Amino acid sequence: MDHLPNVSNQRNSQSQTQISHLALDIGGSLIKLVYFCRYDDSCRDDDDELRSQNDSLYSKSDNGQPVLDGRIHFAKFETSKISDCLEFLSSLKLCLGGFHDCSAPLSDKIFIKATGGGAYKFADLFKEKLGFSLDKEDEMECLVAGANFLLKFTKKLLHTWMVDEDGKFERVSGTSLGGGTFWGLGRLLTKCRNFDELLELSHHGNNRVIDMLVGDIYGGTDYAKIGLSSTTIASSFGKAISDNKELEEYEPEDISRSLLRMISNNIGQISYLNALRFGLKRIFFAGFFIRGHAYTMDTISVAVNFWSKGEAKAMFLRHEGFLGALGAFMSYEKQCLDGLTVNTTQQKFPISLSSAGDKIYCSLSSNSDENGSIEHSVHGT
Amino acid sequence: MDHLPNVSNQRNSQSQTQISHLALDIGGSLIKLVYFCRYDDSCRDDDDELRSQNDSLYSKSDNGQPVLDGRIHFAKFETSKISDCLEFLSSLKLCLGGFHDCSAPLSDKIFIKATGGGAYKFADLFKEKLGFSLDKEDEMECLVAGANFLLKFTKKLLHTWMVDEDGKFERVSGTSLGGGTFWGLGRLLTKCRNFDELLELSHHGNNRVIDMLVGDIYGGTDYAKIGLSSTTIASSFGKAISDNKELEEYEPEDISRSLLRMISNNIGQISYLNALRFGLKRIFFAGFFIRGHAYTMDTISVAVNFWSKGEAKAMFLRHEGFLGALGAFMSYEKQCLDGLTVNTTQQKFPISLSSAGDKIYCSLSSNSDENGSIEHSVHGT
Repeated sequence: MDHLPNVSNQRNSQSQTQISHLALDIGGSLIKLVYFCRYDDSCRDDDDELRSQNDSLYSKSDNGQPVLDGRIHFAKFETSKISDCLEFLSSLKLCLGGFHDCSAPLSDKIFIKATGGGAYKFADLFKEKLGFSLDKEDEMECLVAGANFLLKFTKKLLHTWMVDEDGKFERVSGTSLGGGTFWGLGRLLTKCRNFDELLELSHHGNNRVIDMLVGDIYGGTDYAKIGLSSTTIASSFGKAISDNKELEEYEPEDISRSLLRMISNNIGQISYLNALRFGLKRIFFAGFFIRGHAYTMDTISVAVNFWSKGEAKAMFLRHEGFLGALGAFMSYEKQCLDGLTVNTTQQKFPISLSSAGDKIYCSLSSNSDENGSIEHSVHGT
Repeated sequence: MDHLPNVSNQRNSQSQTQISHLALDIGGSLIKLVYFCRYDDSCRDDDDELRSQNDSLYSKSDNGQPVLDGRIHFAKFETSKISDCLEFLSSLKLCLGGFHDCSAPLSDKIFIKATGGGAYKFADLFKEKLGFSLDKEDEMECLVAGANFLLKFTKKLLHTWMVDEDGKFERVSGTSLGGGTFWGLGRLLTKCRNFDELLELSHHGNNRVIDMLVGDIYGGTDYAKIGLSSTTIASSFGKAISDNKELEEYEPEDISRSLLRMISNNIGQISYLNALRFGLKRIFFAGFFIRGHAYTMDTISVAVNFWSKGEAKAMFLRHEGFLGALGAFMSYEKQCLDGLTVNTTQQKFPISLSSAGDKIYCSLSSNSDENGSIEHSVHGT
C-alpha cells in the first residue's frame, strides 16, 4: 500500500501556517473541513522530505500569473463536539483570500463556504464565536463537485467511466441505514464511545455468532437451488432470538462485525438496485462510513458483486468522506473569490489502483488516516 | 374491520378434532402449521354460531364425490421452542388421509409435507418423537403456491393484478434485514422476550427520540430541493451518537419504534427497487414480520409510496405469514395423496379490502390474531 509522502498533523503543524481558503461540510454526525495551506516557512519545515522529492512544488508561476503553492488539508470533528472545531478554527492563522498580508486584521465580513444541514443550523454560532458568515452551498451540488474533483485525478487510470463534467446530477435514492446507524446502534450495544474504535472492534469479531446463516436454518447445508450458500446471512442478528443470552454475554467484537456487515450489505444492495435503473456498471461509494476501512469496502464490494452476479463493481476514492467539503471548497472557484481560481489539474502525489478479484479500489492514496493532505496550487487570475 | 365468525383456540378445541391434512413450514425463527380439521361432532360444538349462519357448510357433496367439510387452521410456534410444537402435534387426533377411520392406528409410514430449512434440520427429530417422515417441499415453490392460494380468494376484488397460475416464479432479491433482525436487535436493546410484546411497545414509542431527522441536521428546516421534509429520517439511530445517553436511559418503546421504522422502510425500499426492474406496480408483502400489524404495514406502504412517488402500492394479505406452510399444504394436491384434491374455490368467510389513502390493505379477514382458521372443503376424487 502506498503512503502519502507527508501527512501533517492538523493540530500542530498547521496551527501556525497560513490558511487561504477554508470550506466546511457540517453533517449530522461529523464536520468535515477542507482548507488550503500556503507553503510558507513553517510549512516547509514540516515538509523536508517532500520538498527534496518535489522541487517543482515551489515554482512560483507557470503562466505568468501569481501562484500559491501549498496543500489541501482534510480534517474532521464530531458534530456533537462542535466546540473543538470552533477552537481549532480560531487557532488557525486564517489569511482568507490568499494573497493578502496575513498580519493585517481580517475584514469585517468574512464568508466561509459551507454545506450540509449544519451550515444552516450552526450559522449563528459561527458568526458569534468566530465572526464568520457561512456562505451556504447546496449539499448535493457540493457532493457532485467534490466527486468530480477527485475523479479527475484518477481519470487516466480508469478510462471507461463517464464523468459528467457539467456537474449535472439527480438524486435518485438514499437510505437511513448508514454510518450514523452503525455508530448509533453500536454505541448502544457495545458501549464504544468512538466510531473508529467500533470499526477496530469489527476486525476481531465473527458475525456468525449473532447472525443467522442459511446453514443455521437448513441444518448446515445450503439452499443451492436459489444460489444461497450455507454461509449467506439469512437474518442479521437472527441468532439473538433463540440464544437466550443477555446483551452482556455477547462479545462487542462480534456485535460490531454483525452491524458492519448488515449495513454494508444493505448499502451495497440498494446502490446496486439503483445503478441497475440507469444501466451503470460502476458504483462509487463515498461518505465517512467507509473511511478507507478495508473490511467495509470488502463487504460493500461483495454485496454489489453478489446482487449483480458480477456485472457491477464497487469503487472507492481516497478522501471520499470529504466530497461535500471539497465541493464547497471548489465553489470558491465559481465565484472567482478574491480573483483566485483553483487549478485542479496538478497531480504530484501517489495514486494507487488496487484490484482484488472482483473488487477495484481506486484511491488517491491509501494512508489509513482519513485526515491528511494533498499537494495543490492556487493560481491568481 | 370484519372479523372471522369463529376463530378456534388451537390448543383446546382442535386437540380432539380430526386432522386429515397437516403441513409445516419450519423457518429459522418460527414454525408455521397449516392443517385441515374435519367438522365432526366436537368441532360442531364449537361452531354453533357459524353453523347456524352457514348451513351449507355441511352439505356432503357437490359433484357426486365424497366431501369433507371443515376448516383450514393456522398455528405457529417459535423454532427455539420446537418441543412445544412436537407436544401440540402429538396431542392432535391425526387421521391423515381424511377418509380413514380415525380409531384405526396410524400406518407405519406417515409422510407430512414440510418446507423451510427446518424440514431438513429437524427431520430426524420429527421421526424420533412423532414417527413422521417429513416430505420436503421446496421453500420458494411453497411460498409461491401459498401466495397464489390466497390471491385466488381476493381475485374478484382486485381485477388488475397478474396471478401466474402456473406458479412460475423467479427469486430476484432478498434481504437479511427482516423480522429476525427486528426481534434479535430488539431483544438485545430492550430485553423484551417476545416478538409481539416488542411490536406492542412500538405502538407507544416515538422514533424521533433516537432517529436523526433531516430537521435535526438542518436546524428544523427541510431540504425541499431534493424532496426531503424535516421529518424524513436521515439516520436511523443517528441521535444515539451525540445524545451521550446510556442504553438504559432510552425508553424501550422508542427503541422499538425506531427499529420497526428502520426495517419496514428498508423492506419497502428494496421491494420497490426490485419491482421497478420488472415494471410491477403492486407489491405483495408476506412473512411473519408483518403479522397484520397496522403500523408495520403503514410504514412499508409509506416507504413504497415515497420511493415510487406514488406509482407503486404495497399490498398485504391476511395469513401472509403462512404462505410457505400453505404452499406445502397445497402440495398434497399435486400428488393426489390418498385420492384427495383440495378444492380451493369455496369461499365462505369474510374478505375485507380496506384502503387508506395511498395504501390498500387486502385481507382475507382482519382479525388481530395471526392464528385462526378459514372454512374449506376437501373433495375426494
